Amino acid sequence: MSSTAGQVISCKAAVAWEAGKPLVIEEVEVAPPQAMEVRLKILFTSLCHTDVYFWEAKGQTPMFPRIFGHEAGGIVESVGEGVTDLEPGDHVLPVFTGECKECRHCKSEESNMCDLLRINTDRGVMLNDGKSRFSVRGQPIYHFVGTSTFSEYTVVHAGCVAKINPAAPLDIVCVLSCGISTGLGATLNVAKPEKGSSVAIFGLGAVGLAAAEGARIAGASRIIGVDLNSNRFEEAKKFGVTEFVNPKDYDKPVQEVIAEMTDGGVDRSVECTGSINAMISAFECVHDGWGVAVLVGVPNKDDSFKTHPINFLNEKTLKGTFFGNYKPRSDLPSVVEKYMNKELELEKFITHEVPFLRNQQGFRVHA
Amino acid sequence: MSSTAGQVISCKAAVAWEAGKPLVIEEVEVAPPQAMEVRLKILFTSLCHTDVYFWEAKGQTPMFPRIFGHEAGGIVESVGEGVTDLEPGDHVLPVFTGECKECRHCKSEESNMCDLLRINTDRGVMLNDGKSRFSVRGQPIYHFVGTSTFSEYTVVHAGCVAKINPAAPLDIVCVLSCGISTGLGATLNVAKPEKGSSVAIFGLGAVGLAAAEGARIAGASRIIGVDLNSNRFEEAKKFGVTEFVNPKDYDKPVQEVIAEMTDGGVDRSVECTGSINAMISAFECVHDGWGVAVLVGVPNKDDSFKTHPINFLNEKTLKGTFFGNYKPRSDLPSVVEKYMNKELELEKFITHEVPFLRNQQGFRVHA
Ligand SMILES: NC(=O)c1ccc[n+]([C@@H]2O[C@H](COP(=O)([O-])OP(=O)(O)OC[C@H]3O[C@@H](n4cnc5c(N)ncnc54)[C@H](O)[C@@H]3O)[C@@H](O)[C@H]2O)c1
Ligand SMILES: NC(=O)c1ccc[n+]([C@@H]2O[C@H](COP(=O)([O-])OP(=O)(O)OC[C@H]3O[C@@H](n4cnc5c(N)ncnc54)[C@H](O)[C@@H]3O)[C@@H](O)[C@H]2O)c1
Ligand SMILES: [Zn+2]
Ligand SMILES: [Zn+2]
Ligand SMILES: [Zn+2]
Ligand SMILES: [Zn+2]
Repeated sequence: MSSTAGQVISCKAAVAWEAGKPLVIEEVEVAPPQAMEVRLKILFTSLCHTDVYFWEAKGQTPMFPRIFGHEAGGIVESVGEGVTDLEPGDHVLPVFTGECKECRHCKSEESNMCDLLRINTDRGVMLNDGKSRFSVRGQPIYHFVGTSTFSEYTVVHAGCVAKINPAAPLDIVCVLSCGISTGLGATLNVAKPEKGSSVAIFGLGAVGLAAAEGARIAGASRIIGVDLNSNRFEEAKKFGVTEFVNPKDYDKPVQEVIAEMTDGGVDRSVECTGSINAMISAFECVHDGWGVAVLVGVPNKDDSFKTHPINFLNEKTLKGTFFGNYKPRSDLPSVVEKYMNKELELEKFITHEVPFLRNQQGFRVHA
Repeated sequence: MSSTAGQVISCKAAVAWEAGKPLVIEEVEVAPPQAMEVRLKILFTSLCHTDVYFWEAKGQTPMFPRIFGHEAGGIVESVGEGVTDLEPGDHVLPVFTGECKECRHCKSEESNMCDLLRINTDRGVMLNDGKSRFSVRGQPIYHFVGTSTFSEYTVVHAGCVAKINPAAPLDIVCVLSCGISTGLGATLNVAKPEKGSSVAIFGLGAVGLAAAEGARIAGASRIIGVDLNSNRFEEAKKFGVTEFVNPKDYDKPVQEVIAEMTDGGVDRSVECTGSINAMISAFECVHDGWGVAVLVGVPNKDDSFKTHPINFLNEKTLKGTFFGNYKPRSDLPSVVEKYMNKELELEKFITHEVPFLRNQQGFRVHA
């Protein structure tokens, strides 16, 4: 038992008081974990577009004041009642979506969309009592996607915590708690390219680079990177991308360009842009008979996916994924092992490191 | 060697001289098979919508005179040069699409869309010499989808012939050469419902009933039949359909009706209508996390499949199939065995039997 167990902890956190206004470092009170909750000491956290998106709060119901942050690594400080598989000192990755291990999704081999703990961007409180564990000068501060890692200490549901190998460097593997796992899993768990196959990756941001890394690990022989921004190509070479296509360089649809490059289409494609045009191209550029396309990017509310149904009858498959189909508790520990045994390279995803809150914490901004 | 091998055979055939005009029973000359071809004696043949569609020739380049027919059972009369796996006397099902066993599709475990022998409705001649093997009073008569089974004898590519158990009754198993295999395979090979799962079947024609039969064989516990024509429901009970939905009985989209019936959606759906609305509903009615929808119906040229891409990100999968993903030569013999060991029931698909051409031939019209 740590000496702080059962006590309120005072620590520093970056609080978003209003939509779009700079975060303010505040002294925040963090209540002890309740039933099925754990309190974590956050050692490293990174910034993701999703934090920025909800901080800007354009076209959403704003929920402020709030503590953002969801890509992080930390150590369990104390556990609430009923938590049996975590204990103080465990090294963990908090994840924005959870795994209760009881619902139909958790029991399905294919789904990771837990009924109880699936990502919920509209809920700023804990499930147990519908309240926040954070307060500043007595005022409650909302949580964000159940993680709120822009704080030295945070409280999360035990189902949203992956317990990992304590030998793994948390400053590196913390990137696995969001976009990197999403892209990697989209390729390894959903697209599943065979050794020697061809894979097109649409969008070469962090998620797309991770999808390319998945294709490299799977042994794909051609990895075709597609991006509207040719500056991404140099960086992408480090991730195994072998060829590049900028749709702007052609006056025909990029799916036709890719079909010509590959004698009829790629074996697999993974879309990591959020652009509806890229989603349609990613589907149409796979080979008939066996091609599989996987959508990862988050579309706009009023987007419509349109294609001629004959593409499906020609035996092309279209799938999508959420968090790379990884179940956070069951699957992330083995992704960390892939890094430990040098199959997966994570260092190359980390581009800047800036101090955040305190010395022992890193604020990482990735590719 | 049969005494007719190497000779032209004179026999009866139903010739379509012009689009939409009644077929005429003619004495037709059938040339011997050339390299990689076989000549078959057709014992049973059925009529399928596709024959009617190309006979009407609306909106197509008409190709007449022509001998239609593609659902049939027969016996090998003689084989051409280079044919090693078939010999006179073999019981066979000719199929409108073939399997060369050499191309990328044939070598892929997933595809049955052979590059060489994939269905081609525009080619009325044999591949070997670009000519027809049929003539009437010296005038060549076009072939249809490589089968032309409305003739007592026909010549087909050896790659379009499935050699089956000679103990199987050809008058029954001949229905496996088109729609029944298409529906059955759509469920068994592509949708792959687990035992105890829920399956929705859109369209209860012959193809949809076969898809339902596949769900029954797979052990689905709920099989929901969807058709605009409630008269189909009585018949469908024989095929294991447990519940019925007529979209016309509701004022909300049928996908919502099905989601309510099934606590969020069915595990699998198979669309067998050709209607674009049914295709969209069939996709949207599967459960998120693990649902798979399979399109079978042939859409119109200018149809567009439209859905919100979030449905894919919620881990619904959309596939389509051609001939139920069966490879004709490799897979049909085992479907015949499923009938022989009473796993698959075929008699219930056969509704009328009318004499055709001669006594030993049956002209079957199925459900
Ligand atoms: N499904 C999930 O679980 C999940 C998780 C994290 C992120 N995401 C989504 O994945 C997507 C990518 O995330 P990211 O962090 O890598 O974003 P990013 O903005 O860093 O990268 C996107 C890249 O796509 C390129 N792009 C945009 N439109 C394009 C087009 N039409 N064709 C080709 N390239 C195009 C951009 O130039 C950019 O390089 C986003 O939509 C994000 O919301 C999904
Ligand atoms: N993909 C293949 O390999 C293949 C092979 C054979 C047939 N097919 C296609 O499969 C489809 C079905 O063939 P069939 O012979 O069973 O046809 P059919 O006409 O006998 O049956 C179709 C059924 O669908 C119903 N239907 C039509 N629109 C509907 C809607 N919006 N919602 C619900 N039900 C609807 C009709 O009432 C009818 O009962 C056709 O499109 C056919 O071209 C495909
Ligand atoms: Zn993120
Ligand atoms: Zn769950
Ligand atoms: Zn047919
Ligand atoms: Zn082939």
